[in-house]
Amino acid sequence: MINVNALTGDLERVREKSPLIHNITNYVVMNNTANALLSIGASPVMAHAVEEVADMVQLASALVINIGTLSREWVEAMIVAGQTACRKGIPVVLDPVGAGATAYRTNVCRQLVEICKPTIIRGNASEIMSLVNSGIATKGVDSADSSDAAIDSAKALALAANAVVVVSGPTDYITDGQQLEVVKNGNPMMARVTGLGCTATAVTAAFAAVNSDALQAAAHGMAVMSIAGERAASKAVGNGSMQVLFLDELYNLDAETIRKTIRL
Amino acid sequence: MINVNALTGDLERVREKSPLIHNITNYVVMNNTANALLSIGASPVMAHAVEEVADMVQLASALVINIGTLSREWVEAMIVAGQTACRKGIPVVLDPVGAGATAYRTNVCRQLVEICKPTIIRGNASEIMSLVNSGIATKGVDSADSSDAAIDSAKALALAANAVVVVSGPTDYITDGQQLEVVKNGNPMMARVTGLGCTATAVTAAFAAVNSDALQAAAHGMAVMSIAGERAASKAVGNGSMQVLFLDELYNLDAETIRKTIRL
Amino acid sequence: MINVNALTGDLERVREKSPLIHNITNYVVMNNTANALLSIGASPVMAHAVEEVADMVQLASALVINIGTLSREWVEAMIVAGQTACRKGIPVVLDPVGAGATAYRTNVCRQLVEICKPTIIRGNASEIMSLVNSGIATKGVDSADSSDAAIDSAKALALAANAVVVVSGPTDYITDGQQLEVVKNGNPMMARVTGLGCTATAVTAAFAAVNSDALQAAAHGMAVMSIAGERAASKAVGNGSMQVLFLDELYNLDAETIRKTIRL
Repeated sequence: MINVNALTGDLERVREKSPLIHNITNYVVMNNTANALLSIGASPVMAHAVEEVADMVQLASALVINIGTLSREWVEAMIVAGQTACRKGIPVVLDPVGAGATAYRTNVCRQLVEICKPTIIRGNASEIMSLVNSGIATKGVDSADSSDAAIDSAKALALAANAVVVVSGPTDYITDGQQLEVVKNGNPMMARVTGLGCTATAVTAAFAAVNSDALQAAAHGMAVMSIAGERAASKAVGNGSMQVLFLDELYNLDAETIRKTIRL
Repeated sequence: MINVNALTGDLERVREKSPLIHNITNYVVMNNTANALLSIGASPVMAHAVEEVADMVQLASALVINIGTLSREWVEAMIVAGQTACRKGIPVVLDPVGAGATAYRTNVCRQLVEICKPTIIRGNASEIMSLVNSGIATKGVDSADSSDAAIDSAKALALAANAVVVVSGPTDYITDGQQLEVVKNGNPMMARVTGLGCTATAVTAAFAAVNSDALQAAAHGMAVMSIAGERAASKAVGNGSMQVLFLDELYNLDAETIRKTIRL
Repeated sequence: MINVNALTGDLERVREKSPLIHNITNYVVMNNTANALLSIGASPVMAHAVEEVADMVQLASALVINIGTLSREWVEAMIVAGQTACRKGIPVVLDPVGAGATAYRTNVCRQLVEICKPTIIRGNASEIMSLVNSGIATKGVDSADSSDAAIDSAKALALAANAVVVVSGPTDYITDGQQLEVVKNGNPMMARVTGLGCTATAVTAAFAAVNSDALQAAAHGMAVMSIAGERAASKAVGNGSMQVLFLDELYNLDAETIRKTIRL
């Protein structure tokens, strides 16, 4: 279960240290994830040129690799940055956007998991399941309980990749293959704003930058996202205002708000 | 004349089926068009790697090709995706952003029209006119009535390309070369938000995904855009709030609002 | 000292002439800088294909080169566009985003300064200082007064590059190497919205498009930004609403508001 004191402590540390988060991410969400990192108190940098990513990532406290709008040159840079981060002990958070949709995406993701050794992998259930070898894929598509299948896949991937795996959804599951954390806040409207999943990945990276316990960092990142999202949704008129209110909620999130909103 | 029952029926179908719309579009508008598709109830995906676009488009119910920030590699992917869509009977909606401004843009657009055989082409008057062979260019630049010149060009392009052509402007004209539909809603403030034209193209693709009558689909897409835009403009303080309110209006648009706002 | 009549005159001219501003800029800010240019009354175009940038820039009244998410192909296009603009007497405004962070960035910036001969260079203190040869770097890192060091670097760069140099910060400094203009408006919250620096560069280009006195143009652009930012911050709840309010303030900025808000 999430320790609320540890969570609010991490949030304070993000705001105090303002860690630099290097993002190699997709075009759709760049502006929003940069703003979300600024909301939470971190410092975003976006850079993808293979000529500079190794230099840039060494200035950063965490690296986000998000394959949303991947292409050959970008994957090349992701690998260089990821390997450098891995060698230097800088946490890498991977977002396997759309893994499973095309063979190219799935293959690139598996390659990134193998080469960059991400500390945390965050995706939705189908993305996470696509990264698990079919043999391990547990209960398969006929599973009566899709959460169970997703959790089983997440645990299998966590063990195989030696990473913390987050499955986002109505409830978020976070596992290192043994332990399981659960985040129950959130609102279905979050799925109507493009890139809030990608934003969760970036925010999680900010927590990984200040907390070396990856299971805690991932759980804290997801908790903060789902609390801000739930509060924003309660005021939003549509997905336009939802996007704006979400950033404002993240910006103003404090220990008191977290305590009164979190559902453990 | 637009049949309001058919229009509201299409809107319901978009919300029920949540068709996947594959966008190969420009960097400026990606976030906004993704959100507008989510507002209307569709599912956006942005992917442009030549390694995967043929696979991705086959999962989709419509393809948007928008050349706003074109480059050689992207055009290559547009052609692969467009040809695949064309072969599989998936509607293609082309946005010839800036055609006529540079020779490169105009030539790429003509090539895309020829190879990808778009179902619908949506542009402003000068973009559409630039795609019509100069011989057919009707009344030329001295035309007393610019709407007439635009409509003539649209009809000529529709017949030459065997496509439905939309000319956006204060009044929107939609034609298959024979019939002409007119959308009278809208507000000049829509031109002060970047990419609302590109958004119209994406929304039109969502309607083409659920209605195989391309003339109707295009007219319904443009009607929904102009109604949401007109309503948003009536509340907006500037183009910042306009962008947000527009998405909220699209999100909340229902049959009753359409009936009371549409000007036939 | 800024002449308020000259400033409001320039703003009127931007709105009357709606100059086309060609932007080769970064992915993170494209939507926002396009909207800010529309807010102020200018017309944005984003285009980066080496096949068309020479043609496109000749249609424009100013060129923005912003290296935020640079890569080899984009730098190639920046050089072609910058050289063409330079040859045709079209003002070039350079934003050396992140110069100093990596060797690649710093080297590209120095190359762009040399080849494209920018009319105006706008950056924060560390970016500007990284572009000054170390020999000239004045008081160095031990300087007791960082503003003094930044101003000295700006003057040195202005003289070396024959450009007007803007150093953004809590106070903005604008210099041609001799004269110094100061902009005192603004709010720390502006730094919590991604890309407001990049937006300042784009807005400055709109002023350079209507005023051939680059020192005045740069000072007027920065004044307008800081006034809109200060007013937006006074109403913002967080950085989400700040981004929206900023565009609305820019959209509605008039002579009376400028007069009552500017601090000279």
